[in-house]
Amino acid sequence: MAAPPRNRAMTDGTGRPDEFGFIATYLAPLAEGCEGALGLKDDAALFSVPPGQSAVVTSDALIAGTHFRITDPADSQGAKALGVNLSDLASMGATPLGYTLILALPPDWTTDWAQGFTAGLAEYQDRYGIKLLGGDTVAIDGPLTIGVTAIGSVPGGGQLTRSGAAAGDDVWVSGTIGDAALALALSDRAGRLDAPDYAHLLTRFERPQPRLALGRNLIGLASAAIDVSDGLAADLGHLGRASGIGAVINVESLPLSGAARRCIEKEELSAEIVLNGGDDYELLFTAPPQSSGAILAAAEKSECAVSRIGNTNDGDSFRFIGKSGEDIDLETSGWTHF
Amino acid sequence: MAAPPRNRAMTDGTGRPDEFGFIATYLAPLAEGCEGALGLKDDAALFSVPPGQSAVVTSDALIAGTHFRITDPADSQGAKALGVNLSDLASMGATPLGYTLILALPPDWTTDWAQGFTAGLAEYQDRYGIKLLGGDTVAIDGPLTIGVTAIGSVPGGGQLTRSGAAAGDDVWVSGTIGDAALALALSDRAGRLDAPDYAHLLTRFERPQPRLALGRNLIGLASAAIDVSDGLAADLGHLGRASGIGAVINVESLPLSGAARRCIEKEELSAEIVLNGGDDYELLFTAPPQSSGAILAAAEKSECAVSRIGNTNDGDSFRFIGKSGEDIDLETSGWTHF
Repeated sequence: MAAPPRNRAMTDGTGRPDEFGFIATYLAPLAEGCEGALGLKDDAALFSVPPGQSAVVTSDALIAGTHFRITDPADSQGAKALGVNLSDLASMGATPLGYTLILALPPDWTTDWAQGFTAGLAEYQDRYGIKLLGGDTVAIDGPLTIGVTAIGSVPGGGQLTRSGAAAGDDVWVSGTIGDAALALALSDRAGRLDAPDYAHLLTRFERPQPRLALGRNLIGLASAAIDVSDGLAADLGHLGRASGIGAVINVESLPLSGAARRCIEKEELSAEIVLNGGDDYELLFTAPPQSSGAILAAAEKSECAVSRIGNTNDGDSFRFIGKSGEDIDLETSGWTHF
Repeated sequence: MAAPPRNRAMTDGTGRPDEFGFIATYLAPLAEGCEGALGLKDDAALFSVPPGQSAVVTSDALIAGTHFRITDPADSQGAKALGVNLSDLASMGATPLGYTLILALPPDWTTDWAQGFTAGLAEYQDRYGIKLLGGDTVAIDGPLTIGVTAIGSVPGGGQLTRSGAAAGDDVWVSGTIGDAALALALSDRAGRLDAPDYAHLLTRFERPQPRLALGRNLIGLASAAIDVSDGLAADLGHLGRASGIGAVINVESLPLSGAARRCIEKEELSAEIVLNGGDDYELLFTAPPQSSGAILAAAEKSECAVSRIGNTNDGDSFRFIGKSGEDIDLETSGWTHF
């Protein structure tokens, strides 16, 4: 990563440490107890992949103002940066082993922010049993940029991918969808909404819950899986095209939280926001119909609800149908990153 | 990483593809032939660590205008982003297995840049026998930001670290030092210098050569190692503090390229630029004196020159002495990142 703190003055009068002080103060505690991290004081870190397992790696960047709001609590920025990467591991059925962190700090970063941000990382580290392995801290004349690389492992050859779905499979999704998108869409109307309902949506936006236990327990059961980050419609398209199948989704079957249902009703929103909104970080997966009992058992074991929302077919279109079988036309299909 | 290209229009009138088109056009070719990369179309990538080896990971970020110049050729930006990470692996004695890439593109990126950048990555991939495993491509309202995470392996327990040096060891450095710093310092005087000399310095700045073969061949011989990225004086300090030793360096023994020697002489520069300048990406390492024959043999096998430049001691200071044993006082000790 970098180096031990030097015997040198702070870089400015704000009480903020320099690069090495930053690592020693804020990041080294996140590596404590992880022998391979070498105290974040060496050039690279060591990690072990359990025998018989394949290693899995994913890198995701979050940029302030794009992937989270600058006004989001600092701890949620840390939680989200780690959470969205762990969600990618979850969608492969992988168990996390550790992560590295690239942090590009804008000129106005504060020690309060650094404390909050690393507290969010620490919370997610503890929850999922991993440590910080290494990384790089640099200055940027631009927005705060957070790059996380998460490393995990799956039983050799057992990984879930996007490409295994077959025509006739059931389509499932975990948890509830649309909450995070609703939090964003309704942020200027928050005062009009029931406070606990809005708080629920906001927590879902700020603190994604990677479905790691579910992903692990779906190995050998699900034919394909993806995590819902770009919106259910878009991610269904990604999975479907990778597998060479089409799908029909019953919009009535989509799992909505009570909070989402009440906010949609009150604000007279359409289903589009649920289908196109991003940041759900639920697992969207497929499985043959005869596996449904096993899927439900795996979900229970994982303490994570799952819902059957449609079926795949040998077409190449992705239809969303309403209560009476009518097509719901989606103007756009998810968001793009640039 | 992300998703297959969608059937959707370009995002603007410049002929630039959107995120998925960018991945398909520029990045997917970098993953070709690597089964575990899953065509950059899945959530995470798979890689294997050879039996009996420990996995090694390092992440480094490069920001345009800070870690490279916006005017540097696009291919050298790619080469440098990968090269500096591979240099971190080299300093642990590791062999690279693959890498992930985070790319934050500013609004004015061009397809010419993208082609050049990925050509530089491809060149270094080919040279070191690795492929792109995955990553993330996002937009940034700020400078081009490149994050690379390189993954490698070392024979179990054999890794080089910064902390193994003992008092009485020889201090060695590979290749030549100061070239890259001289290229930067003399860029406004380039016209006054011998053209091939300046071209040599510039290549050293733009295209770091990670000393992977040397690092690998130093396993079991070197007591400690670090790559020289912050400047020889600063990195010697990092290694020395990690090992709990001091050192005396004979400035006359520092390996300078002919080009560096001539440019220093012509421009009447002091030794400071060689000791404090960054971006050498050479290996600085220590070894007991009785290993010197084996070190030279390892260097020959690695086709990489090495020079003995001083000795460690049981103090905690890092002295640089001139021809007559006089101390050379270094005002500053390397650069910091913020």
